[in-house]
Amino acid sequence: MAERPKLHYPNGRGRMESIRWLLAAAGVEFDEEFLETKEQLHKLQEGDHLLFQQVPMVEIDGMKLVQTRSILHYIADKHNLFGKDLKERTLIDMYVEGTLDLLEVIIMHPFLKPDDQQKEVANMTQKAIIRYFPVFEKVLRDHGQSFLVGNQLSLADVILLQTILALEEKIPNILSTFPFLQEYTVKISNIPNIKRFLEPGSKKKPPPDEIYVRTVYNIFMP
Amino acid sequence: MAERPKLHYPNGRGRMESIRWLLAAAGVEFDEEFLETKEQLHKLQEGDHLLFQQVPMVEIDGMKLVQTRSILHYIADKHNLFGKDLKERTLIDMYVEGTLDLLEVIIMHPFLKPDDQQKEVANMTQKAIIRYFPVFEKVLRDHGQSFLVGNQLSLADVILLQTILALEEKIPNILSTFPFLQEYTVKISNIPNIKRFLEPGSKKKPPPDEIYVRTVYNIFMP
Repeated sequence: MAERPKLHYPNGRGRMESIRWLLAAAGVEFDEEFLETKEQLHKLQEGDHLLFQQVPMVEIDGMKLVQTRSILHYIADKHNLFGKDLKERTLIDMYVEGTLDLLEVIIMHPFLKPDDQQKEVANMTQKAIIRYFPVFEKVLRDHGQSFLVGNQLSLADVILLQTILALEEKIPNILSTFPFLQEYTVKISNIPNIKRFLEPGSKKKPPPDEIYVRTVYNIFMP
Repeated sequence: MAERPKLHYPNGRGRMESIRWLLAAAGVEFDEEFLETKEQLHKLQEGDHLLFQQVPMVEIDGMKLVQTRSILHYIADKHNLFGKDLKERTLIDMYVEGTLDLLEVIIMHPFLKPDDQQKEVANMTQKAIIRYFPVFEKVLRDHGQSFLVGNQLSLADVILLQTILALEEKIPNILSTFPFLQEYTVKISNIPNIKRFLEPGSKKKPPPDEIYVRTVYNIFMP
């Protein structure tokens, strides 16, 4: 039997959280080795475990994968979450890339200065409700299906749900003008693997707090 | 016969140049519609031609593809430039993601303030020679083949060559301590499709100048 994947990252969301979401959605149990100090990072770097000297890194199937997108793509390919043909795959890829652009703003938010953090909430709200959510609302309304692409769960659904829930933590009514996305959020959240991930005790990480921000600075700042 | 792809972007490198490189490497002839004004961008946006209201956009095979990576992936898949199995594909994906991180620094460079531009050249040189080039030098030295993955041309080679040549324009001796990358650069540059793209009169764009920077600001700034 294949060994469980092992995730190397600090104990917080950051760029690893999408990978945790995807593994959970695929029903894959995984282990985590939390980076807590600069020395641990150096040890990984000096042992040649990080191709480009960076985390996230995931040990899986005898490989040491790096680069968030590459790790997501590998897991999605392996677990049939990337569409049934090149056309579906390309749609999923575009939806994921757009959503990741929005998610990046959320990931960087706790590292902004306090004054900038509030401005950035306004900015991310605008981006979400003007640029990204209308696209997905229209997709769901037009095809009337439960999932974004091909009438089955894909990488695009997992990343979009992660992003919606992270935004709702900051802006609870962000979906108020998007009825199809509201229904979609409930439906996808109730898929058994995802439901379990959303329950207490799972490997889903809490919203970033000061301790997480300080830990990240301690590990990664020169 | 399929129509030629049509690329929508300003007349300069930016995020479209990798796509031009890849199409050229695949031997695909393409047309370009250059964005020159904010009004042209609005027209594309209002006509629902841009999924997330952004360029690059490429009309290809009846689709309007957006998001740089998704466009690259589609073309690479279609033209057999993404490896022969999931393992090769994942290696290519990781190499491309790392190289795109470096290329992003180069793409943003002309938009920095003059003072910051010089500092950033030092930064990108460090990144290239400490984080990225040693990885590819070692890959080539260890397997002794002409291409990064699977002994045939892939998306990874195209993006790496583009990035090396763009860096050499700024820092001519950047490969001085990387003999395998030097040899690799010459070899890949001499592949007929790529050689043609490197010759005068091709659709390869010149280094960004003040006119390009001003055009980009005029089109994209609110």
